[in-house]
Amino acid sequence: MSFSPGQMLAEIRERKPLVHQITNYVVMNETANATLGLGALPVMAHAREEVEEMVALAGALVLNIGTLSPHWVEAMLLAGKAANEQGVPVVLDPVGAGATRYRTETARRLLDEVNVAVLRGNQGEVATLVGVEAEVRGVESIGTGGEPAELARTAGRHLGLVASVTGPVDHVSDGKRMLAVANGHELLAAVTGTGCMSSAITGCFLAVAKDSPLEAAAAALAAFGVAAEAAASDAKGPGSFHVGLYDALAALEPEALDARAKVS
Amino acid sequence: MSFSPGQMLAEIRERKPLVHQITNYVVMNETANATLGLGALPVMAHAREEVEEMVALAGALVLNIGTLSPHWVEAMLLAGKAANEQGVPVVLDPVGAGATRYRTETARRLLDEVNVAVLRGNQGEVATLVGVEAEVRGVESIGTGGEPAELARTAGRHLGLVASVTGPVDHVSDGKRMLAVANGHELLAAVTGTGCMSSAITGCFLAVAKDSPLEAAAAALAAFGVAAEAAASDAKGPGSFHVGLYDALAALEPEALDARAKVS
Amino acid sequence: MSFSPGQMLAEIRERKPLVHQITNYVVMNETANATLGLGALPVMAHAREEVEEMVALAGALVLNIGTLSPHWVEAMLLAGKAANEQGVPVVLDPVGAGATRYRTETARRLLDEVNVAVLRGNQGEVATLVGVEAEVRGVESIGTGGEPAELARTAGRHLGLVASVTGPVDHVSDGKRMLAVANGHELLAAVTGTGCMSSAITGCFLAVAKDSPLEAAAAALAAFGVAAEAAASDAKGPGSFHVGLYDALAALEPEALDARAKVS
Repeated sequence: MSFSPGQMLAEIRERKPLVHQITNYVVMNETANATLGLGALPVMAHAREEVEEMVALAGALVLNIGTLSPHWVEAMLLAGKAANEQGVPVVLDPVGAGATRYRTETARRLLDEVNVAVLRGNQGEVATLVGVEAEVRGVESIGTGGEPAELARTAGRHLGLVASVTGPVDHVSDGKRMLAVANGHELLAAVTGTGCMSSAITGCFLAVAKDSPLEAAAAALAAFGVAAEAAASDAKGPGSFHVGLYDALAALEPEALDARAKVS
Repeated sequence: MSFSPGQMLAEIRERKPLVHQITNYVVMNETANATLGLGALPVMAHAREEVEEMVALAGALVLNIGTLSPHWVEAMLLAGKAANEQGVPVVLDPVGAGATRYRTETARRLLDEVNVAVLRGNQGEVATLVGVEAEVRGVESIGTGGEPAELARTAGRHLGLVASVTGPVDHVSDGKRMLAVANGHELLAAVTGTGCMSSAITGCFLAVAKDSPLEAAAAALAAFGVAAEAAASDAKGPGSFHVGLYDALAALEPEALDARAKVS
Repeated sequence: MSFSPGQMLAEIRERKPLVHQITNYVVMNETANATLGLGALPVMAHAREEVEEMVALAGALVLNIGTLSPHWVEAMLLAGKAANEQGVPVVLDPVGAGATRYRTETARRLLDEVNVAVLRGNQGEVATLVGVEAEVRGVESIGTGGEPAELARTAGRHLGLVASVTGPVDHVSDGKRMLAVANGHELLAAVTGTGCMSSAITGCFLAVAKDSPLEAAAAALAAFGVAAEAAASDAKGPGSFHVGLYDALAALEPEALDARAKVS
């Protein structure tokens, strides 16, 4: 690992960047608490009347289409374009792309009209967006023909961004370079919104390392994965794991993160 | 008990049905986590642009009017009709029917225009929908003149569906047959959205037993009640009970469910 | 302390008032559970079709602009005016006022058109609304030039209501009298929506003491602060603190509240 996720984490805690999130109803509390637990400041604002003004105050913008509808998509486009003008980096979480045409088309439209720094999705969602056959059951990736490392590289190259493909091992690529993150725990799949939380945390890291989106995306997944490992050690099931995740994010020390991160 | 809730639970875990939920803002995270904890896959999607396509992928549809507004009601009608066409069973949770005219009329309209398999509500809500005098304070049933077993039977017969009336003892009836479920714990009343969770879980069971809606509805309440009993044994109050409920749903074994279910 | 927060708490548990909340997507579950944990009944309803009817059933109305948009603002105005007509006291939480013009103008409009009994906000939000220079980062108050006790007094006097300004020490004033509440814990700042919860709890107390809004607002903050102190003693971090907060609200005894409340 040629960079330090711990140093980025220390910088998040020092600078407390505002992370503007236009996300889905299911996970708003969860991504706000993950952001706050890590040490950044979340703000949820989706009205067309204010998104451009709000994003100008932010260190990163996270767009998530988990419970999309036309007004929200319009707000995402406005906020995304304003973020681009202001130099605020944008994360896109294309929740459920591949499950319905509306989700797939909306994710494509956001990618077309907004300069996205990091696309954070599961294998089925990302495969859908690069035109690879995939099965998405609702918002869960059920399996694709491809190999995830190759998929991340293809997505990074084709879409001109950092593709952050999460799964048992996460793969992050800008089309050329590739980082694999082997942290995490299977209980993450038993709690709704953990993918969305990883996107929010990607926004936190990107806010302090916007010139290194590949490293920021990998560091975010390492931090979330290391916190999940700590939370799992005390958990009796998905409920207590979920609670422990916030405790673990808040307790995560930069040195421990660097020591436990499995980034290659 | 002439059927096995445990066998249905095993089938949910084997088949992992998608349960499409158009529900209220208050409980979306909670019903998603209850669904996932039990072993099924939740998806929340409410845009008119996608509900018909999404429900066609689902094993059950759960409609919940807890924070209704016109666009959402329209989406529920579209999704409900598409579910009927596709043979996807529908659960309706008429949250707060009886409290305002808008809630009562919307619940009635959904019952008129959609073929609902299971109506899951508290005594005041169900009484309202069959025209029996009831007091509903906000979304809480304060008490009705009727006897809950008789109410379930009347609702089942009048509305031509399975009425699942929850309370200290739950009563489920298709108008002819009647099942009573005596599982549960009083802490369920101290956590918001536990009624909504029981509706979501009813959707999970219905997804694997759509030809036996009476048994599916009773099995769901037994499973939720048994999980609540387990969660209550370790709880210090409503917060820890709430967390333990997800742990208990995930830990619930088919054999234990059959052993502890009090269905008569 | 010339009044008894514990007596008000006992009355909440006795009367179980309905507290109608038109609040933000991030905290709906949390404020509902805080309300229920304390012993009152929450109801979330925001449709223009029903807010006037719903608020007429309520003991208090809580308006919170955390994720505002035009339809919701319109509902808040309708509900607020109906509450005024019915004599139902209104709490306003101006989340993020000062961060964007839309939030500031909406909060001002609500104050202009609705007779608000208690304005519950952080220092930056309240300072913004009385025209004092303040920095609000997203929804967090970063610091203002003023002294919080003076700010509460000024806001109470200028706006003609009870200003409840929360921070390390809370200050509550009707422009003449002033109460300071020194309960609470720093972990409150590590969990999203704790300010919103304190507004919801203010609604619960106001519902049983609408003729004493100053005392009700202070008692609410004392109750929430004492519960936070209890929750913090067992917490490993923000996640377990959050869970423990609901346990502590439900376990809070009137006598213990009076014994531990630091109101001066």
